[in-house]
This record gives sequence, structure tokens and C-alpha cells, in this order.
Amino acid sequence: MEKVKIKEATVVYFEKPKLKSPILIEGLPGVGNVGKLATEHLIDEIKAKKFAEIYSNDFPPQVFVNQDGTVKLVRNELYYGKKGKTGKDIIILTGDFQGMSPRGQYTLADAVLDIAEEFNVKMIYTLGGYGIGTEIEKPRVIGAATHVELVEELKKHGVVFKGEEGGGIIGASGLLLGMGMLRNIRGVCLMGETSGYIVDPKSAREVIKTLTKILGIKISFARLDEKAEEVKRITDRIKSFEKTLMEREDKEDLRYIG
Amino acid sequence: MEKVKIKEATVVYFEKPKLKSPILIEGLPGVGNVGKLATEHLIDEIKAKKFAEIYSNDFPPQVFVNQDGTVKLVRNELYYGKKGKTGKDIIILTGDFQGMSPRGQYTLADAVLDIAEEFNVKMIYTLGGYGIGTEIEKPRVIGAATHVELVEELKKHGVVFKGEEGGGIIGASGLLLGMGMLRNIRGVCLMGETSGYIVDPKSAREVIKTLTKILGIKISFARLDEKAEEVKRITDRIKSFEKTLMEREDKEDLRYIG
Amino acid sequence: MEKVKIKEATVVYFEKPKLKSPILIEGLPGVGNVGKLATEHLIDEIKAKKFAEIYSNDFPPQVFVNQDGTVKLVRNELYYGKKGKTGKDIIILTGDFQGMSPRGQYTLADAVLDIAEEFNVKMIYTLGGYGIGTEIEKPRVIGAATHVELVEELKKHGVVFKGEEGGGIIGASGLLLGMGMLRNIRGVCLMGETSGYIVDPKSAREVIKTLTKILGIKISFARLDEKAEEVKRITDRIKSFEKTLMEREDKEDLRYIG
Amino acid sequence: MEKVKIKEATVVYFEKPKLKSPILIEGLPGVGNVGKLATEHLIDEIKAKKFAEIYSNDFPPQVFVNQDGTVKLVRNELYYGKKGKTGKDIIILTGDFQGMSPRGQYTLADAVLDIAEEFNVKMIYTLGGYGIGTEIEKPRVIGAATHVELVEELKKHGVVFKGEEGGGIIGASGLLLGMGMLRNIRGVCLMGETSGYIVDPKSAREVIKTLTKILGIKISFARLDEKAEEVKRITDRIKSFEKTLMEREDKEDLRYIG
Repeated sequence: MEKVKIKEATVVYFEKPKLKSPILIEGLPGVGNVGKLATEHLIDEIKAKKFAEIYSNDFPPQVFVNQDGTVKLVRNELYYGKKGKTGKDIIILTGDFQGMSPRGQYTLADAVLDIAEEFNVKMIYTLGGYGIGTEIEKPRVIGAATHVELVEELKKHGVVFKGEEGGGIIGASGLLLGMGMLRNIRGVCLMGETSGYIVDPKSAREVIKTLTKILGIKISFARLDEKAEEVKRITDRIKSFEKTLMEREDKEDLRYIG
Repeated sequence: MEKVKIKEATVVYFEKPKLKSPILIEGLPGVGNVGKLATEHLIDEIKAKKFAEIYSNDFPPQVFVNQDGTVKLVRNELYYGKKGKTGKDIIILTGDFQGMSPRGQYTLADAVLDIAEEFNVKMIYTLGGYGIGTEIEKPRVIGAATHVELVEELKKHGVVFKGEEGGGIIGASGLLLGMGMLRNIRGVCLMGETSGYIVDPKSAREVIKTLTKILGIKISFARLDEKAEEVKRITDRIKSFEKTLMEREDKEDLRYIG
Repeated sequence: MEKVKIKEATVVYFEKPKLKSPILIEGLPGVGNVGKLATEHLIDEIKAKKFAEIYSNDFPPQVFVNQDGTVKLVRNELYYGKKGKTGKDIIILTGDFQGMSPRGQYTLADAVLDIAEEFNVKMIYTLGGYGIGTEIEKPRVIGAATHVELVEELKKHGVVFKGEEGGGIIGASGLLLGMGMLRNIRGVCLMGETSGYIVDPKSAREVIKTLTKILGIKISFARLDEKAEEVKRITDRIKSFEKTLMEREDKEDLRYIG
Repeated sequence: MEKVKIKEATVVYFEKPKLKSPILIEGLPGVGNVGKLATEHLIDEIKAKKFAEIYSNDFPPQVFVNQDGTVKLVRNELYYGKKGKTGKDIIILTGDFQGMSPRGQYTLADAVLDIAEEFNVKMIYTLGGYGIGTEIEKPRVIGAATHVELVEELKKHGVVFKGEEGGGIIGASGLLLGMGMLRNIRGVCLMGETSGYIVDPKSAREVIKTLTKILGIKISFARLDEKAEEVKRITDRIKSFEKTLMEREDKEDLRYIG
């Protein structure tokens, strides 16, 4: 490994895979952690292989401690994977953090787009959560795209478009599309509806289901379903606990009065 | 379009118009959004044409989603337009945001002044709001300028000068004048009085009316009048609602006591 | 005037005066505005002449509006003045703001030290306020210095040294000494005791009195005395008003009870 | 001394000692000040000699005033010391502050690693506190390391590993390990358990005791024991005072009722 200094965006390659005009899929931490959960699931399912890491002095200055006591510097990671029905290879971007400052966000997005161009990426899919502030039974997938014809294609796959002016997509999921346009790279953002209060594998499931349908990739969703079950168990337990508390308070109030 | 990286100020040209010593008019988001409303109105009225965009890693890292589902990276925009009676062409600067940090503000102002010099701009008009913290029936236009003789000219057009030491003009409207002076560019700032609590098309109307009078340009103010009417309708409705609420509370208080 | 871009420290010269190994005196805005009041008084009294301005993208992005309606970009200013008894010329640094970020502060101090070295400055006096959190009748002048022998000299002039470890001098007054040491420039900091709650010309008077005594310069303190009187009138009026308010409340309380 | 400008990391050497593949030990201000106390104690005990200072425009812009009235610019310091049983020389990094921004933290860590490489450092020990939010009688030493075999070695010396995923080490103690890995430098972090509310010499004692045992260095802990005693005296006095206060309040309550 060559020696590395951490600038605003420092890319370290383990391998330079030969890829045939791949698509780029991004899912970094954000609302409900939807994008990160979705890409991590995809990486596991298609057994994508890590080929590069991105470090940044705009990430928090820290290491994580692994279960075995070893440390890892916080980072973003790039994986590549097998072709889907579309006949295209896949590059996947995920990681521990997004840049903390606007400047870092822009610089990191430019670095990712440099990599995208090096691999001749012509299409980017960015994945994220769409916070609605309330619990949701059946999260829909909200879309945005760089070109009107992409909007039409997405609608055929059930992606919802709000049709309102003025919404915004903050962070890497927005920047990769907006800045990609300046480099003639097309892109789509898929956002799973989510309360915004909890990590939301159910929303991630809908996002990755939509994406793999578009790409013609067949994967299992079992592990995301398990995670969603686990989150449900925890939230149910909390709700039941809260209910008990409230009932007890009610009874105590009665006793106090009676 | 050439490939673009987003630095603190990245200018992308669509066209390099031939302009005859144009004036530069700036109106970016700020107090009451007065400057932005004023320049947007002028752009519409004189059918000014966009010739460049300015991106910055000091803008919020986000895209806006348009009504048709497509995205646009947040930016500033440069338009050029037809001559006024003064015989001068016009460049207009407007946009989604101002720089978020002092450093970004200075760098963006320097970039705009570089463009101004490239087009041989000798005079800058910056437009903004002057917050007074209270509703105002007939907003006046407050002025400031780079040279005393410009102050005298503006007074003839009804522009008000406070005659007090120590006021400040924050952001692009101030910097373009102050930094323009260091490049021998003259400039004037026109600020419409506004409460500072709402978007204020009425104030923008006074500002653009004064500016077009100075420049000898004839435009309609109908659309700004409509917007002002709409804002009035909304604020009236809110006031009426608040009044009803208060009266109801009064009655309930009486009932409670009586 | 040559064309100027505003970097973290951009120096614009009007004149390059020939000075004989001058001393540098700094007084920028800070606690009680003591340093700025002191240097401004000195500039007036010795009729020092402005020869350069320093701009910075770490200053607030704004202009001030003068009484005549013209604007000035916020900045620091350098003056030079007549010899004192010490046979040395004087450079004085004052201005509207200090750098807002640590990085800006360091860069500006380095720029000032570059200028100091260009003029062969061997000694720096930095002036400031020493906040004690309570009103003070007879403010003392607290000192700090780059070398022990300077401490001894200052003690002879009545400057007080706390003799405690761990105090700090924040901003330009501290950095010019600490960073000057790394360039073999000697320096002294004179801090006038002040409550820290008001602009304090009385404290500034003590500081500039001590400095001019050290330098063997004779100046009048009349204008600072006037300013101190004015501040006293204002604070007395506020106190009297507060007293009246409290007495009225006392009476009303009595009436209420009785 | 050569002339110095303060960049994000500016290293000033007093001496370039000849060291035989030294180890680097870091202890900067942090939780409970454990790391700084530990390294300062080691420097005193092995009579390590200062050979360099690191300045940064990401440190607070200030000087400290020493007891004798002289000032020192805030900084980090590098010392070198005598061999331990391991046959290795020692470089010790301590100082007044850590970088205040993420970017400064990364840049400073890179500068330290540059120095480490220049001296052919192959192993880094970083020292810090592990905040547990509650008072602790017998603080344990928690560990983390760059390689699994180092984890195993540390366990033999009684260092505790949490065995949980997701913990983080923030600041220089984490970055020097994580970034050192990218340069093929091995490293270990030793963190003394501490409440996190007070400066904790007792915790520092456990850390430096573990470190010197690993390194085969024999030192006295008397001075840290004294400091720990002093901290205990102060906290005991506070607790006793609080107890008295509470008892008095109890009595007064009784009197009030009775």
C-alpha cells in the first residue's frame, strides 16, 4: 500500500477492476439510514467486492473500534459487482459518514464523479430516505432525476413524483445528480418514505426492490425483512412499555383522588 | 458543455455575449427577499437571457427538485438584457443562495467582479431589503454608494440617505460595492424598506421602480403588484384568524368567570 | 490603485514610507474596545498618516455606510507617525474587526509580522482590555512580554504582573507577541483593567498613558477624558433610571399590601 | 531560529536527534486529561528532552502567560528520551491543545506521522481517557490496536478489550492509529477509565503504569500519586461541603415546619 495523506478527498485503490461501462449506485448515511441499508444489502446479495476507500479530513476525526479490538479509520468505500439484466457492471458507494461541511460534501462528490468518469460511468442511482415525520405502513419510493425521460421511465416502475416545486435533496444523493449533470452523467434518486425517527430497513427494502427491478437483478430481501422485523419488535416493545406506564399513571391518579 | 468541478466559485458560460460597457445589477436572496424579487421581475420584463451560472462549494450541498421531477444544482445565474435609455447593456445577477461563510461571500464577490471587469462594467447596482422590524405602508428606498456624487444623483430620484454613521450592508450587496471600489468600479445600493418578516414584493416594486427610473427603462409592475396583493391576502387572512382566536379566548374567559 | 482580490490577508499600500527601525503598536477591537480606543487616540494626537489597509475574507462580509452615504469595506489600517523620545518611528495597526476564525487570526498576524519585518520592526506593543467582570474606579495596566528583561522594565513604569500561571491573551494582541517571538521580534502587551461590559475610554487612557510614558511621547488625554465623561454620564443615567424603577416597584408593593 | 509562518501544521525543530527506530508515544489534552498527564509524567521521569514544537492555525489563537510574565504561543511539543528494556528510543508528543476542526485534526496527525516516518518510527502508543460517566475506584485500562496480534499482546498485560462493535476513539489518539495504518505503522491505544468530570491523575497512573510495563521501563509514580491525592482532597472537600449544605437545609426545613 502506498503512503497516504488525508486531504478533503483521498482515494486509496486496492484494485483497479476492469468494468464495462458500469452504473454507479450510492447509499450513504442519511434520513432513516435508508440509503446505507439499501446499498449494504445489495453488496451482500451480489457479493460485491471492495476495490477502493475514500478518506476525508471533512469526516469526523475518529476511528471505530471493531469487535476484535482493532481500529478502522472512518471512510467511504467503493465496491464493484456482477452484471444485472441490463448488461452493465455495478459500482457501489457506501460508507461511515458524509462530509460534514458544504465544502467537504462538494469535494467528495467531485472525487466520486472523477472515479465515475475514469470507469466510464454514464448513469448514477442515488438512494436515500424521504422523511415524512410520521410512522408509515407501506413506504412509497419517491423519485427525482436529471432528465424528463428518466422521470417517465421511473413512473413505469411505480416510483412516485411529488409534482411540487421547491423540494430539495441534501447531501451526496443530491449532489451526485446535480454535479453529474455538469459532466453529462445521467442520474436518478430513489427515496424511500420513512418517519425519519428510526433506522428503517422496511423503507430500504422498498428502495432496493425498486432499484433491482429497474436493473433486472434478482436478489433475496430476507435479511432486510429480518432487520425490519427486529426494528418492529423493538419499537413494539417501547410502545407497549409506554402504554403500561400511562395506564399505571392513570390508576395511580385514580387512587390518589379516590 | 465542458466538465466542471465545484470550487468556491465556479463559473460556467453558455454564451459570451458581446455587450457594450454594460451595467451590472445584483439581486440575491436576503432581507424580505427584496433584491431577488426585484431582479427576477426585471429579467422577466426585459426578457433578459441567461448566459452563465456560478456554482460554489459554499452554497448548501443540495439540489432543488423541479415540478417535472428533474433536479437542478443550487446556483447563481447571470443574465444579459436590452439597453435602457442610458444606452447601456445590462448584466443581471440573481440566484438561489448567497455564500454561507464569510470566505465564500468574498470569493463569490471577487468572481462576479472578475466577470464584471471582463465585460468592462463600470457601474454596479445592488438591490436589497432594509429591515425595519415593523410593517410599513409606503416603503421608501434607502441608498448607499461608492462616491459622494452618486449619492447626490440618487437623492434627485427620491432615494433616502439616513445620514447616520455606523450602518452596515451585509452580503453581496455590500461586498460588490466595497470590493468594486478596489477595482475602480462605481456602485450604488438600493434597499427597499421592509418588515423583514415576510417576502415583500411591495418593497421590491419600489426598488425596481427607482432603478428603472434611474436607468430610463420602461417596464410594467403588474406582476409584482399581483404578488404583493397575494401576500396581502395571506397576511390579512392570518391577522383575521388571529383576531378571531383572541376574541374567542376573551369570550371563553368571560364565560369562565361569569 | 492596483486591482485587489480579497484573500485571508490582502494588504493594499497607498504609500511605502521610509521609517527608521520603527516600533509597531497594535490596538484592535476587543474587551472594552480598550486597544482600539487607545490606538485611535494616539493616531489623532500624533497625527499619524495612513499608509496601508488590510482586507480579509475572514472579516465579516460587509461594508459600513458613512455619514455622507458612501460605503467602506471593513478592514484593518496601518498608520505611521513621528518619533518619540526613543528616537524611533511608529507604525500603528487598528481596524474594524479582528479575524473571525482561528485560521484567519493566525494568517492576519503573519501578514502584519511580514509588514513589520519589511520595515525592520524589532519591538511590538499590543494594547487591549483585561476584563475583570466588575466596575473599577482606578483601572491598573496589566502586562505580559516576550522576554523577562522586558517584564522588569515594564514594572518600573507601574505595569502590574499577575504572577499566576495559566492566563491567556486571546487574539491579535497575544498572537503578535507569540508569533513575533518565532521571528525574533520582541514585544509587550499592555492591558487596561475594564469591566468588560462597556466601551471603556478610562481604561484606554491608562493604557495609552503608560505606553506614551514608556516611549517618551507627550500627548494630551483630553479627548479620552471627554469620552470617559460621556460614558460616565450615560451609565449614571441608566443607574439612576434603574434606581427609580426599583423604588417605584417598592412603593407599588407597599400600596398593594397596605 | 529560522522565521516561521503558522500554517495548519508548522513544525519548528530545535534539534534533530539521532534516534534508533524509536517508538512514538502520544498524550494530548482530552477526556480527564489522562493522556496529557500520563505523557507529562513520563517526560519528567525519563528526563526526556524537547526537540521540536508544532504550531497550528487550528489551535486557539492565543498565548499563555507564564508565572514570570512572559508569554508562550500555544503549541504541541515533541520530546525524545532514553531507551527502555525494549532497546528502543522514545519520542513523546504532548501539548496545550488538539486541533479544533476535523480538518486541523487530520492535518496535524499527518504532520506527526511525517515526523514519525522521518525518524523511522514503526510503533505508536496513544494514551487517553475512557469516559464512563461515573466515579471509579480502580480504573481499568481499555485498549485498541491496529492489528489483532497487538490486541493479544496487550491482553497479557491486563489491558481490557470491550469486545463490542461501534465504539469510537476521537481525536489524535484515534487518528494516529487509523492514519498510521495507511503508512504501515503499527499502533496501540491505551485508555484509562475515568469519570470524565475531573482531571484524573489516578487514571493517568494506570495508563502510564501499563505502558511502562509493556516497554520495560522502570519509573516512579510518586508525583502522579501526589496529584491524585490532591484531586481526592479537593473532591472530598467539595463532597463534605455539599453534605453540610444538605444537612443544614434539612435542619432549616425542620425548624421551619416545627
